[in-house]
Amino acid sequence: MTKLLIIGSVAAGTSVGAKARRNSEDLQITIYDKDTDISYSGCGIPYYVGGEVADIDELTPRNAVWFKKRYNIDIHTQHEVLSINHEAKTAEILNLMTNETFTDSYDTLVLATGATSFVPPIPGVEADNVFSVRNIRNAGEIRTYIDQHQPKHVTIVGGGFIGLEMAEQLKYKGLEVTLIERLPQVMPPLDLDMAERVARHLQEKGVKLLTGQTVQSLYDGERVSTVQLESGQTIETDLVILSVGIRPNTKLAKGIGVEIGSTGAIKVNKKMQTNVPDVYAVGDVAESFSLITGKPIYRPLGSTANKTGRIAGQVITGEEAEHRGILGSGIFKVFDLTVAQTGLTEREAVEEGYEIEVLHNIKPDRPEYLGGKEMVIKAIADRNTGKLLGAQIVGPQGVDKRIDVFVTAISFGAKAEDLFHLDLAYAPPFATTKDPVMYTGMALHNSISKKAPLITPQQLVREIENGEAFQIIDTRSNAQFEKAHVKGAVHIPLGDLRTRASELNPDLKTVVYCNKGVTGNAAQNILINHGFKVVYNLSGGNKNYQHVVNNE
Amino acid sequence: MTKLLIIGSVAAGTSVGAKARRNSEDLQITIYDKDTDISYSGCGIPYYVGGEVADIDELTPRNAVWFKKRYNIDIHTQHEVLSINHEAKTAEILNLMTNETFTDSYDTLVLATGATSFVPPIPGVEADNVFSVRNIRNAGEIRTYIDQHQPKHVTIVGGGFIGLEMAEQLKYKGLEVTLIERLPQVMPPLDLDMAERVARHLQEKGVKLLTGQTVQSLYDGERVSTVQLESGQTIETDLVILSVGIRPNTKLAKGIGVEIGSTGAIKVNKKMQTNVPDVYAVGDVAESFSLITGKPIYRPLGSTANKTGRIAGQVITGEEAEHRGILGSGIFKVFDLTVAQTGLTEREAVEEGYEIEVLHNIKPDRPEYLGGKEMVIKAIADRNTGKLLGAQIVGPQGVDKRIDVFVTAISFGAKAEDLFHLDLAYAPPFATTKDPVMYTGMALHNSISKKAPLITPQQLVREIENGEAFQIIDTRSNAQFEKAHVKGAVHIPLGDLRTRASELNPDLKTVVYCNKGVTGNAAQNILINHGFKVVYNLSGGNKNYQHVVNNE
Repeated sequence: MTKLLIIGSVAAGTSVGAKARRNSEDLQITIYDKDTDISYSGCGIPYYVGGEVADIDELTPRNAVWFKKRYNIDIHTQHEVLSINHEAKTAEILNLMTNETFTDSYDTLVLATGATSFVPPIPGVEADNVFSVRNIRNAGEIRTYIDQHQPKHVTIVGGGFIGLEMAEQLKYKGLEVTLIERLPQVMPPLDLDMAERVARHLQEKGVKLLTGQTVQSLYDGERVSTVQLESGQTIETDLVILSVGIRPNTKLAKGIGVEIGSTGAIKVNKKMQTNVPDVYAVGDVAESFSLITGKPIYRPLGSTANKTGRIAGQVITGEEAEHRGILGSGIFKVFDLTVAQTGLTEREAVEEGYEIEVLHNIKPDRPEYLGGKEMVIKAIADRNTGKLLGAQIVGPQGVDKRIDVFVTAISFGAKAEDLFHLDLAYAPPFATTKDPVMYTGMALHNSISKKAPLITPQQLVREIENGEAFQIIDTRSNAQFEKAHVKGAVHIPLGDLRTRASELNPDLKTVVYCNKGVTGNAAQNILINHGFKVVYNLSGGNKNYQHVVNNE
Repeated sequence: MTKLLIIGSVAAGTSVGAKARRNSEDLQITIYDKDTDISYSGCGIPYYVGGEVADIDELTPRNAVWFKKRYNIDIHTQHEVLSINHEAKTAEILNLMTNETFTDSYDTLVLATGATSFVPPIPGVEADNVFSVRNIRNAGEIRTYIDQHQPKHVTIVGGGFIGLEMAEQLKYKGLEVTLIERLPQVMPPLDLDMAERVARHLQEKGVKLLTGQTVQSLYDGERVSTVQLESGQTIETDLVILSVGIRPNTKLAKGIGVEIGSTGAIKVNKKMQTNVPDVYAVGDVAESFSLITGKPIYRPLGSTANKTGRIAGQVITGEEAEHRGILGSGIFKVFDLTVAQTGLTEREAVEEGYEIEVLHNIKPDRPEYLGGKEMVIKAIADRNTGKLLGAQIVGPQGVDKRIDVFVTAISFGAKAEDLFHLDLAYAPPFATTKDPVMYTGMALHNSISKKAPLITPQQLVREIENGEAFQIIDTRSNAQFEKAHVKGAVHIPLGDLRTRASELNPDLKTVVYCNKGVTGNAAQNILINHGFKVVYNLSGGNKNYQHVVNNE
């Protein structure tokens, strides 16, 4: 019988085995994993540490017995594959419980070796109260440490989504939290202006945020009590959590000549095959590729691990299947905010050479009379084709729905104009008559078609700095104008614009704005219809401008 | 200046005016409405009656002054258009406040006359305590009546979504509720098996449900105290709410020779033009068409009214625009359930002549360790093309997201297999690693490709009744089997199936099942891989079977 050997038993490895068995009973399937837990939800770890998930067993619902019974798969945990001889098609395995070594053979090999939290090489990382966020065992250690030592202050190093989720959970647990991020922003998959909305929320919730700061060392031997930053600043602390990213475990792969891609993860084709015949790579150890650009990207996530595992299982058993690539979609909850993104950011789109159109759309998720709350959607489209390239959304509710509609639309190559036509399900408890997604498409399309061009606050500031002359019109009420307005703006309320348009110079570049963008568009149309040559609507209105320019 | 005359100032009429003005300042735009309120949220009415929306003004945020200031549109409420002379292009209008009649003229006419609640011609409907759910004024009357008379019991006639929303809201307000529906099921846009899930929930919440019953008369003159059914049954009541559907207001249209479609609403082309030159129809008075079949359908909804209004506004001002049709998407909340549907039901798909594949997918919206709760997705695909035709979802949370993903996918002509590849945004507070939508696509595709065919409980029962022989295998635990199982099933737990497969006849049609479907699929694969010729997995497992067959 053909032998399938899988190294790694978390999401991807078990998906390969399960799918292969579903397709065929004529395979011997064996999985080795050096860890103790299998098929677990790594993404649930912050919620276990924080206590929202009471029992660790909830994150590990399945064990080796279950897999044997259901799929006739032999899973051996605490078994480390030490080396592979691919010419002989054998693997040398160490049983970590008995310390015995033995050899197994295979016809097909799947590398599902995952990734490991990167531990920065700084003094002190080995101390008792310094933890990575890594796996189930280690999650238990963090929670036990907190329960036993009752730390008052935690320092989290790394502002990606795991760092932010840990910040939330430990704050809920009553700890003071300081979060340190080397980059100038939290959440690098977001554009700076959107990341700043997240940063502000963290600060409102009492998290002390230090961006653009690097840890130099952790003091005091066995137990760290001081974090020393390169800037010279020091932080007194009782606990340190490291979440500075993960690195694919490629050692075994390299040992048999498997090619590593530009991202540092294993290079695979759409069938999840490596360059070495009969060797597949799936999950966090393999790179993926962008559905938009076709280029390799590395975004390790449980959902992608499941997907690539299933595809490998199909291919291995002779079923036609190909990975179609990912959009790099991500979502997380941090205190009262949901933060989500898919596709390209503005920064990435520009780097890829797209001529882009950018919209900031500020809209409630449902009517305010039924508790609707504003979300900010930043959407990016290709000016030449009209195609949507990406979306980022920050808001208190309804964000997960809108990002998945964007994901689905972008997957099918949607143009901005297509969004208006979607017959999304409408009722007041769930949406507005024109859903925020539809509105985003309408405004982007109007801008792309040059009917109603948009300008972002950043673009406006940049062009003014470059000496470009603009007349800027604030169309809001007097009180709103007095409170805060765009630098250099003149005040003409919308109701007066038709009669006072003659006060303005129709040949001068004009920017109109309101509070969030809709009235600005109405004003823009009036001026365009009065023969003004170039009229921009300020994307996201004064609200977005004050956020971006004055950080308010 | 060209004159645009719009009759009707709710969602559609105001959308026409706003879009026309956004595109052009060279139009005189006038709207007449015989009612007092404009641009209101009719869908919010049940929440005002129930008190969730405190103030009626929240449903009518805009008035004529606002429209004049922003869009330079003249809206005249309490002005009824009595007749139109389309040869002269004039309209005769009655000012309901002064009782004066005058004539206005137009170049382009838009009929946005909406629809009116149908009042069944039965004795008693004119009584003081009998109300339709119609408009803002009438919503106020219902609420006032309840506040003043403190009725203890309400009878709601009609089990569409407005009837169900009213049932919920009035139950919350403390009334006893009896709901009467002429058809054998509530919510006709759902298949019977899904509607029964809603019916059961209503009953659990204490709503007395009488389906397949018709009201004969309402007794007792000025104030109704007894509802008499055709079956002879009588119901003592203090208040009657009629929600038996609405009829398009086509009288003015008919007066000028505008063609009425097969649905009873005005027939329009994709540009919202009627058969009469320079006459458009939008919103609830116009029919729409199915994105899937291309055939006319009538599904009056605020979202579609906004959409068709905007399209007419574009066309009238010379912009290229076409309505792409609707999926008939709908969603509503009733107590703890969300109920949603889009595209074709099983019944409709069969009527349209499709060969279909049907799946019942029972899955939590997110991991149970973070509060996930099961939803039931019923999805229908075309067996010949693999294309998705429709979806119905019932569940306590996360339903609105999944239906909108289906809406978006179906709008782009998605096949079942496409759903697995979507890079939906995953994190435990929002979804499972394989989202229920992805799982639906996988199982449907496996069935269509004949790898793992599905059979619905209804089909199974029907085929057995037709004399077809099946061996039926229950793969669950002994305790589960003892509690309730499919009639005629033999019990072979999944873990024993590989060794006990030889007890079965591989040439006999076989049906396997588990609790919800996933383990059934594993069992199905084992038997197929053991050479069994025809093996079905029971759609939705024993849970769905007991619901459908034994109404449990």
